Amino acid sequence: MAVGEAIFPQMPAIAGIRLGTAQAGIKKAGRRDVLIIEVPEQARVAGVFTRNAFCAAPVHVAKRHLQHGASRYLLVNTGNANAGTGMQGMQDAQACCDALAALTHVASQSVLPFSTGVIGERLPVERLCNSLSEALTNLGDSAVAWELAGQAILTTDTRPKGATATCNVNGQMVTINGIAKGSGMIKPNMATMLAFVATDAEIETALLERLLRDSVDRSFNCITVDSDTSTNDACMLIATGEGPRIAGEESIAVFRDALDRLTRELAQAIIRDGEGATKFVTLDVQGARSRDEALNVAFTVAHSPLVKTALYASDANWGRILAAVGRAPVEDFDVERVTIDLGEVRLVEAGERVPGYTEKAGSAVMTRDEIDIRIHLGRGEASATVWTSDLSHDYVSINADYRS
Amino acid sequence: MAVGEAIFPQMPAIAGIRLGTAQAGIKKAGRRDVLIIEVPEQARVAGVFTRNAFCAAPVHVAKRHLQHGASRYLLVNTGNANAGTGMQGMQDAQACCDALAALTHVASQSVLPFSTGVIGERLPVERLCNSLSEALTNLGDSAVAWELAGQAILTTDTRPKGATATCNVNGQMVTINGIAKGSGMIKPNMATMLAFVATDAEIETALLERLLRDSVDRSFNCITVDSDTSTNDACMLIATGEGPRIAGEESIAVFRDALDRLTRELAQAIIRDGEGATKFVTLDVQGARSRDEALNVAFTVAHSPLVKTALYASDANWGRILAAVGRAPVEDFDVERVTIDLGEVRLVEAGERVPGYTEKAGSAVMTRDEIDIRIHLGRGEASATVWTSDLSHDYVSINADYRS
Repeated sequence: MAVGEAIFPQMPAIAGIRLGTAQAGIKKAGRRDVLIIEVPEQARVAGVFTRNAFCAAPVHVAKRHLQHGASRYLLVNTGNANAGTGMQGMQDAQACCDALAALTHVASQSVLPFSTGVIGERLPVERLCNSLSEALTNLGDSAVAWELAGQAILTTDTRPKGATATCNVNGQMVTINGIAKGSGMIKPNMATMLAFVATDAEIETALLERLLRDSVDRSFNCITVDSDTSTNDACMLIATGEGPRIAGEESIAVFRDALDRLTRELAQAIIRDGEGATKFVTLDVQGARSRDEALNVAFTVAHSPLVKTALYASDANWGRILAAVGRAPVEDFDVERVTIDLGEVRLVEAGERVPGYTEKAGSAVMTRDEIDIRIHLGRGEASATVWTSDLSHDYVSINADYRS
Repeated sequence: MAVGEAIFPQMPAIAGIRLGTAQAGIKKAGRRDVLIIEVPEQARVAGVFTRNAFCAAPVHVAKRHLQHGASRYLLVNTGNANAGTGMQGMQDAQACCDALAALTHVASQSVLPFSTGVIGERLPVERLCNSLSEALTNLGDSAVAWELAGQAILTTDTRPKGATATCNVNGQMVTINGIAKGSGMIKPNMATMLAFVATDAEIETALLERLLRDSVDRSFNCITVDSDTSTNDACMLIATGEGPRIAGEESIAVFRDALDRLTRELAQAIIRDGEGATKFVTLDVQGARSRDEALNVAFTVAHSPLVKTALYASDANWGRILAAVGRAPVEDFDVERVTIDLGEVRLVEAGERVPGYTEKAGSAVMTRDEIDIRIHLGRGEASATVWTSDLSHDYVSINADYRS
């Protein structure tokens, strides 16, 4: 299931970025499960990685290789996460980097590995390495290459997710392309969210890292399907340096805005394709003392199984929203200042149900595919927006049946 | 659904405690939905209440009346939580106390009100008050009176929950009886967990409060079905003072032990009857630096929808347990010290899968109704035990359909 229709955008080429895919037979027969992204020599690459303490072998290796600099290839496989695999997993991830490095005549540290799929099974290194020349053969920068790349990184996703954005820097156009996978943040078994974003702009590494971190904080870090953080999450940003240089306040602001639009679009696409999702829900918390406080309230509501099942049932059960807000970790919480709106309908004011509220008005909003819930805490100026999906029978089926 | 069989115990009388029930028509026709517990004049009463910031009107009133002392009646209704009802809700709770006080010739502050059921609808005060004389007429201290009381407080529970315990204090027997309701901590819509415990021991109020708080911390505060804290949770402990006096280290230890056994049994009964539960899961976290750290890890695993759906599927998907442990909020978490056992089968050692582990061995444990998961963090001496249930299709059905 998924919310709404989704068309993979016609991606423009980013000069210097080439993508090649292959069928290694790691996932299912006949499905692309290997992706190579080629990065030009002068490119800068930044990455943010999962905060799960049990992070997977490829995450360790990719972080180490990234520090080395001079990244030339991103090597992604699906079907196996190479997580919980100890020293063997590290050797396996390294062996794949070595194989690609040998074929492309670069240093092994110039290859960054990414894996997503089942946790705790050994990576089928031989099958993966055997597929590399196929992927290298069809490297290209066409719209088709981007779309096949979007497909090659999927696991339980029902559709590929891509976004493209442009901005104007000193009269020159900058392009940003991105692809992502994940039916949640948020599926350790699939090990889970990956996003690869590339731009033709020229951006110093330190700035690139800061832009990526900030953008991820307001996009991928603001989505949740089921609260489970993956062992393999990663989001990479590549700047080829072929296009205009981003430096100085104005160009940074323009680029940041375009990057934020793109990451938000990809993050929202993940939620719309969330496991079993029938609703796309925007939780907007305002009037908090800090952004962390606003995020805490938003995530408490977004993770509440009772709110999520009410959303699934299109039941305007505002009491569940109120109870979730009430248990959020907020100090000296004065509920008499809280207002809650469901779409254009006010549910709660001064901590209780609005007198004129009717079940009919609430239900009219709840039957929609896309639902906005706005919570005003009345205690400060900070705010946060979080996107989530509902909890359906299909979510349980997908996760109860995945390995059987 | 519920895990295992459950027989309501044959409860002995507690001298001075009488229980009466009635059908007020608040819940469904033909179901007992009102309970009065009569408490003798010299009794001491202690209570712990929900920490939800949106706590319900009866919780406010019960807390205020409890401070006043001289509690003589506990008045409980199901079918309506009188939560999110503002000033009107406070007046309604007070009106019910006034009505029972008038009929029994006590002060209004001697009545403690408790409500559980749908949030945000006005309490049907008239129907409730009309049922009071019926409940007063059948006040009694028999085993049948206790069992009917256990039934009268249920909402989505599939069965009444009762427990009885005895202990020997200076050669005299002390009896403790308790009833509880709730299919989770943890259901704001039903507004949710209530427990009433009575003993014939004589215990000073300050000690009674401390004993109750400690016992609840290790029983009801260690269970979770779905992480949603109710607006109406309450647990009351009544000491009639008819029996032996509890004072001094030795008698306190003996009584504490009996009380802890009883509250744990009731808490576990709630989990076994958790919404849609097909598994009863004990999460035992050891080797933590503090009890809070152990509880954090235990609850992170217990709340993980992916762990809960794997439990439902009887799938020994240890990667999901590992990933949940890895995202728990633990500082400087060295995963190489972590061991995880599923029943008698070791899954993880030194942060990775044990070499000899077989899927068959893991699956043999997972197919059981009652499953123990032990997690050793290898960083300290503190521990905590948490009980939880799985996440099934029935959980979604129950909560998606409740109001429709």
